[in-house]
Amino acid sequence: MTGDRAQWHRDAAAVRARLHPGSGTSALSGNAMVELAPDFAAVLGDWAMSRYAGDALDLRTRALCTVAALVALGEDRYTQNWIGNALHAGATREQVVALLEQLEVYVGTPKAVNAFTAAKAAFDEHVR
Amino acid sequence: MTGDRAQWHRDAAAVRARLHPGSGTSALSGNAMVELAPDFAAVLGDWAMSRYAGDALDLRTRALCTVAALVALGEDRYTQNWIGNALHAGATREQVVALLEQLEVYVGTPKAVNAFTAAKAAFDEHVR
Amino acid sequence: MTGDRAQWHRDAAAVRARLHPGSGTSALSGNAMVELAPDFAAVLGDWAMSRYAGDALDLRTRALCTVAALVALGEDRYTQNWIGNALHAGATREQVVALLEQLEVYVGTPKAVNAFTAAKAAFDEHVR
Amino acid sequence: MTGDRAQWHRDAAAVRARLHPGSGTSALSGNAMVELAPDFAAVLGDWAMSRYAGDALDLRTRALCTVAALVALGEDRYTQNWIGNALHAGATREQVVALLEQLEVYVGTPKAVNAFTAAKAAFDEHVR
Amino acid sequence: MTGDRAQWHRDAAAVRARLHPGSGTSALSGNAMVELAPDFAAVLGDWAMSRYAGDALDLRTRALCTVAALVALGEDRYTQNWIGNALHAGATREQVVALLEQLEVYVGTPKAVNAFTAAKAAFDEHVR
Amino acid sequence: MTGDRAQWHRDAAAVRARLHPGSGTSALSGNAMVELAPDFAAVLGDWAMSRYAGDALDLRTRALCTVAALVALGEDRYTQNWIGNALHAGATREQVVALLEQLEVYVGTPKAVNAFTAAKAAFDEHVR
Repeated sequence: MTGDRAQWHRDAAAVRARLHPGSGTSALSGNAMVELAPDFAAVLGDWAMSRYAGDALDLRTRALCTVAALVALGEDRYTQNWIGNALHAGATREQVVALLEQLEVYVGTPKAVNAFTAAKAAFDEHVR
Repeated sequence: MTGDRAQWHRDAAAVRARLHPGSGTSALSGNAMVELAPDFAAVLGDWAMSRYAGDALDLRTRALCTVAALVALGEDRYTQNWIGNALHAGATREQVVALLEQLEVYVGTPKAVNAFTAAKAAFDEHVR
Repeated sequence: MTGDRAQWHRDAAAVRARLHPGSGTSALSGNAMVELAPDFAAVLGDWAMSRYAGDALDLRTRALCTVAALVALGEDRYTQNWIGNALHAGATREQVVALLEQLEVYVGTPKAVNAFTAAKAAFDEHVR
Repeated sequence: MTGDRAQWHRDAAAVRARLHPGSGTSALSGNAMVELAPDFAAVLGDWAMSRYAGDALDLRTRALCTVAALVALGEDRYTQNWIGNALHAGATREQVVALLEQLEVYVGTPKAVNAFTAAKAAFDEHVR
Repeated sequence: MTGDRAQWHRDAAAVRARLHPGSGTSALSGNAMVELAPDFAAVLGDWAMSRYAGDALDLRTRALCTVAALVALGEDRYTQNWIGNALHAGATREQVVALLEQLEVYVGTPKAVNAFTAAKAAFDEHVR
Repeated sequence: MTGDRAQWHRDAAAVRARLHPGSGTSALSGNAMVELAPDFAAVLGDWAMSRYAGDALDLRTRALCTVAALVALGEDRYTQNWIGNALHAGATREQVVALLEQLEVYVGTPKAVNAFTAAKAAFDEHVR
């Protein structure tokens, strides 16, 4: 089920092609982990993205759930990146806004406001 | 769009009827907030649950996103409750497990393991 | 006790007039939540600020407690904003400093140092 | 201003006598830190409690602010203990409830519900 | 450097044999993640434990660093487990206590007290 | 064992001389806490740094454990500062990278990536 590294790499590449249609590369992919620990980052990235390839849930639902988790963690840059991914996976802006409204009561207003800031930045990027 | 309290109450009641088909009442509803601050709890509960009534996202997707946020917050009792809600909203156990596998890389293993414990408890409850 | 939306709006307006004597508007009020979800933000803002209107606690005590919660959450921009609110509600700089000294042992030094940075920024703003 | 250890000990003892009128000892005082690191725990306890002795803020306000920070940290046992301390410092139950209602919007519902549970336990203890 | 799954499994097994000399199995190994997602848990466990096999740092230092991270995360059950692991890797009780004293100023007293409780439980287990 | 303030000051000065060989002063020492609460900051700083002077653990191990706690707390500026301290205490870059790889599974990828960013900044500073 979880396969081996070669399968993770293929599965992850297929997911990346859908989420980053232009480049196949996330805006977060040029980070310091990749620079300082390239082998580690490659395995971790393939392993993580391959989880999105399973049939149990569609990619749009998965991306929205990742947004929800990142909002709750308060990881604003990741939230922005995954809102962009959710849009590429077929989510609409209205859906993202509805999700953030729904989450406020659990995560509190400061994290919710930060998430709306991330959404606005992702929406602006997505236009271009 | 956000309506007034009477509308929130109606919308929330409709959501609760779907998530708690037997009783229309959440297992978390008898809490100390309700006892010590009943008016506040009533408004907050109606406001929160009415957010789930919007057309932008289906209830199953919304419930899974709430699970994702609660896993990230480390709120295990709420996670268990919302995994139960997700099952009532049409999610399968396989989908819940796939979601938790996907979230581990963001929230870390300790929170993920706690979430699987919550899932197991919710699955056991759902049988009955 | 918790009233309806019209009462929340009146109560919140009265609180805002005391906390933001010049404009009646918080420095955080022009945020992305207001832009992307204006109805939601309006209800949430009135509901949240109306809680400060109750007689049970005076506004200065309430503002200092909110500062304490925000320091613990590590929400530095909100901390700065509410330290400013506390000053407008009658707290002195000496009281804010005493509060942050008291909180360090619970929240740890990194959050406490960030809170002092927020306090310095709020103190500088308050002069002007 | 911050004095030396002997002064901390005197100041802390005076604070403890007000917060724990029967015994002068907190319900949390018999913890594993005291057992495994007694010298460290003694210094830390005196340092921490001596911060409450300053004139800048009254003890009731300080105790309520500590409650606010602990609610935000999600430290339920400490929250219960400090709600008890706040009652001994002159706060009323109505004030504690009003504070928790006010904090919900910042900390989110799960932490707020946990805080109400802690309040109920502290109120029950305080009767006895 | 990061190898393949077979190498992770061998490396992880070697680490486990040192940390759990009796059984080669962690007290946390029978968890709900293993039950609900056995393939996922097997890969994750081998990947995670294989990181401890590298030559860059000795196992005792690594175990103490993991304890530090878990104390900061507030994951008490994991903290207890890894304090046990640190003892098996050659750390002394005095070293664990010194570490927790050192960490208090960063993580705050509530998390530090919880960590001492975990340490006491781990020390008691280690005797047996 | 824990001594008095004069001893803390001597012990802390000895630790600082090793961690900041040029100046004896941390890059974080000119912060707003020092400015707004100088007496408090002086006591807290001496107390905190004196904990590193004990014989139970060597300074390199202590610094790496502090890095681990700060990564878990998500305090990136402190993480960068303490990675620099760890290098001055004798840790190598390879050891820091190995530690961050090991921690990812507990703290999650977002915090780990932020920690690698902090490490890169600390490595760049250390060259100069």
